[in-house]
Amino acid sequence: MNALLEALRVVVGPAHLLTGDADMAPYCRDWRGRYQGQALCVARPGSTGEVAEVVRLCAAAGVPMVPQGGNTGLCGGGVPRGGEVLISLGRLNRVRAVDEDSITVEAGCTLTQVQEAARAAGRFFPLSLAAEGSATIGGNLSTNAGGVQVLRYGNARDLTLGLEVVLPDGRCWNGLRRLRKDNTGYDLKHWFIGAEGSLGLITAAVLKLYPPLRATATAWVAVADPARAVALLSRLRQHLGDRISAFELIGHSALEMVLRHIPGSRAPLDKAHPWYVLVELTDTLVADLTAPLTSVLADASLAGEVKDGAIAASEIQARDFWRLRENISEAQRIEGISIKHDVAVPIARIAEFIARADQALVSEFPGARIVCFGHVGDGNLHYNPSRPAVQDNDAFIAQTPRVNRIVHDLVHGLGGSISAEHGLGQLKRDEILRYKSGLEMELMRSLKQALDPCCLMNPGKVL
Amino acid sequence: MNALLEALRVVVGPAHLLTGDADMAPYCRDWRGRYQGQALCVARPGSTGEVAEVVRLCAAAGVPMVPQGGNTGLCGGGVPRGGEVLISLGRLNRVRAVDEDSITVEAGCTLTQVQEAARAAGRFFPLSLAAEGSATIGGNLSTNAGGVQVLRYGNARDLTLGLEVVLPDGRCWNGLRRLRKDNTGYDLKHWFIGAEGSLGLITAAVLKLYPPLRATATAWVAVADPARAVALLSRLRQHLGDRISAFELIGHSALEMVLRHIPGSRAPLDKAHPWYVLVELTDTLVADLTAPLTSVLADASLAGEVKDGAIAASEIQARDFWRLRENISEAQRIEGISIKHDVAVPIARIAEFIARADQALVSEFPGARIVCFGHVGDGNLHYNPSRPAVQDNDAFIAQTPRVNRIVHDLVHGLGGSISAEHGLGQLKRDEILRYKSGLEMELMRSLKQALDPCCLMNPGKVL
Repeated sequence: MNALLEALRVVVGPAHLLTGDADMAPYCRDWRGRYQGQALCVARPGSTGEVAEVVRLCAAAGVPMVPQGGNTGLCGGGVPRGGEVLISLGRLNRVRAVDEDSITVEAGCTLTQVQEAARAAGRFFPLSLAAEGSATIGGNLSTNAGGVQVLRYGNARDLTLGLEVVLPDGRCWNGLRRLRKDNTGYDLKHWFIGAEGSLGLITAAVLKLYPPLRATATAWVAVADPARAVALLSRLRQHLGDRISAFELIGHSALEMVLRHIPGSRAPLDKAHPWYVLVELTDTLVADLTAPLTSVLADASLAGEVKDGAIAASEIQARDFWRLRENISEAQRIEGISIKHDVAVPIARIAEFIARADQALVSEFPGARIVCFGHVGDGNLHYNPSRPAVQDNDAFIAQTPRVNRIVHDLVHGLGGSISAEHGLGQLKRDEILRYKSGLEMELMRSLKQALDPCCLMNPGKVL
Repeated sequence: MNALLEALRVVVGPAHLLTGDADMAPYCRDWRGRYQGQALCVARPGSTGEVAEVVRLCAAAGVPMVPQGGNTGLCGGGVPRGGEVLISLGRLNRVRAVDEDSITVEAGCTLTQVQEAARAAGRFFPLSLAAEGSATIGGNLSTNAGGVQVLRYGNARDLTLGLEVVLPDGRCWNGLRRLRKDNTGYDLKHWFIGAEGSLGLITAAVLKLYPPLRATATAWVAVADPARAVALLSRLRQHLGDRISAFELIGHSALEMVLRHIPGSRAPLDKAHPWYVLVELTDTLVADLTAPLTSVLADASLAGEVKDGAIAASEIQARDFWRLRENISEAQRIEGISIKHDVAVPIARIAEFIARADQALVSEFPGARIVCFGHVGDGNLHYNPSRPAVQDNDAFIAQTPRVNRIVHDLVHGLGGSISAEHGLGQLKRDEILRYKSGLEMELMRSLKQALDPCCLMNPGKVL
């Protein structure tokens, strides 16, 4: 091991090979404190060439590796389990090129940095999520991140034109194509997107850019139940077509938590309602979106779909609405532990899922409090039960496997996914075995075996 | 072999196992007459279960298979080379389900059938290409088809939510998910899309649906050269954002051929110009797109980007413009053989590519006539040189390898692709070896080896 550490030190430079416990601590634990493991060392390569050399040395020594970006993951995918060389991509943070169509960035660029580089070029990069200030694009791609603009622009995968990947043996595949069309054989980039570093290490990417948005209208709407929220989505689609860029469902208990824990937050409506929807319309042309939104909401109100609503009168007010949505996770962190689920079902089954999951949980765990919110336009819900009193909650959290079973079995029965946008990591690696067919697992393993026969890339994650 | 034929006959029924030369002839030759091979038999299974059983029997007998959809391919990917069981998917043509978000269709549905089923449900399926009346969705997915709406909606891959695939050993993977988000491991559907049947046989797919289009504006514009066309695209993007749904470049020689060979076609402008652009704007809301298009074209005219132009005054006129574009391939077929290239380069390099390719070809082959047209918004050009006189042309066609070398080397040097939307098939299987890195070929072969170790699925295509 000392020989490996010495060799790695030569590659990345002494300042960028961390071996002391205190130096390594921030890398060896996730931000929520759920996952922790002792890495052999933390290597911080400064270029793709250095990454390749680090991987080559580890592979030759038979030592496993964990790639890590901003360490903002929720499933422990970027945290060591013990004994790995942790490869932190943070120093690969250059924007290599930008033009009207695409931006070429290194894996360690934060998502905010990519968004800002696009904006500086007069273009728009639509991927957006709460952790964007710290989350890196390499991690976003490795988990095929979603976020709040998926309804219109798709997931991280859909925004990718090309990749540069260091393979498990240290060779580098340069797939940094800037083309919208390329049908010369198997499209390798899709193997690595969403693979959570288990097939290789993404070092750079070419991402699509879009026309900038020149008009926005944002509304905070109260609805009686999720079925009416889905009906409202359908109505909005009917009348406003592809102007709908976000449609976020927020349960009252989620809003309550934000109001309690996040300073400066304020309820948009005078009265409380069981459910809310945050709707955003956008346009790439200068246009009045407020008038058509008001008109559709008025019709929805007459049809009984909408109880009350407020349309943001200014950009500041719109940002305030969004801040309520974006702070749900943080508020819940302050409130205490909950059992988190990141699930997707077909949009038409959303109301059924929530009703049946609520009923099943409350009947088995009386007093359970459910914080439910998410991207209804994508069929994606974050469904997080807990119990209000700390003692009761400890006992409830101990029942996590049973709670997961109830929620995930229901999701699966509705044709859904038990991980919509967070990946599998360590958290759902075993859980997935219950729901994926044996054939699908076999296919996944066959690619893993072909690319990483010694299982050195992020072992214990995904597969 | 007789035992296999007997067993296949039992599976698909006697009426659907063809063995006579005359019966098999239409399946064994592509529509342009470029590729031909004798199949062992043609099996026309009527269900996914029958496909699986056919594949299982062939695999057990060690007999290779060729899947075929509408037989409209341009690279010989669906034509037998000799001795294969040809599996025609034409009888798998049911629309299994349709809702607001997605449509589930069997592989043998024609593209037109899918478009119409979406329309009947009040939604829009954007994939569109000249052969859509015969081309099947299974073939579209297996070649990751492009067409005229890619600029706004992406390729066939981007429109796919889920797949059902019969694997090379006859087992069936049911990946017919209707979810917009699913991050539970490797996304297997991307292995099979664009693989031209070499990894398995797509039997059904879940495809995304979009809001219907309620407004359109179409213009036929004359420009002096490709550089000005690209400048015009940039200007349109700047002012009209994502309303631009098509931007097709058409060289004068392409238009001339259509006018000569296609009855009822008429030049949109009084005078001839070296290059034209067919621009289409669309909107999912009812809106006037003609006024903003007129205004941007007027500015472009002042800036010297546009020489002349006509905005379609009616849907009929717009269809006439499109018919000119869509009939280029047919006109060229009538005119005689040309050496076809389906290439992509970064949009910023389009003008340079055309200028350099023209110059290199004309200097080596004086008198060469170049028909160039394509989807400039996607960086995709169809670049088809020939020689006007039949005798000269025969000699020219004999020089195909040399012509390909000139064109493809240039494309590669500009960071482009030698197959943008037609796939590799038999046509470019060897050519690609010159341009793909050894590492990329090795990665492709590793998946092929993992899934189809006996090389029974569409041998001699892609790899």
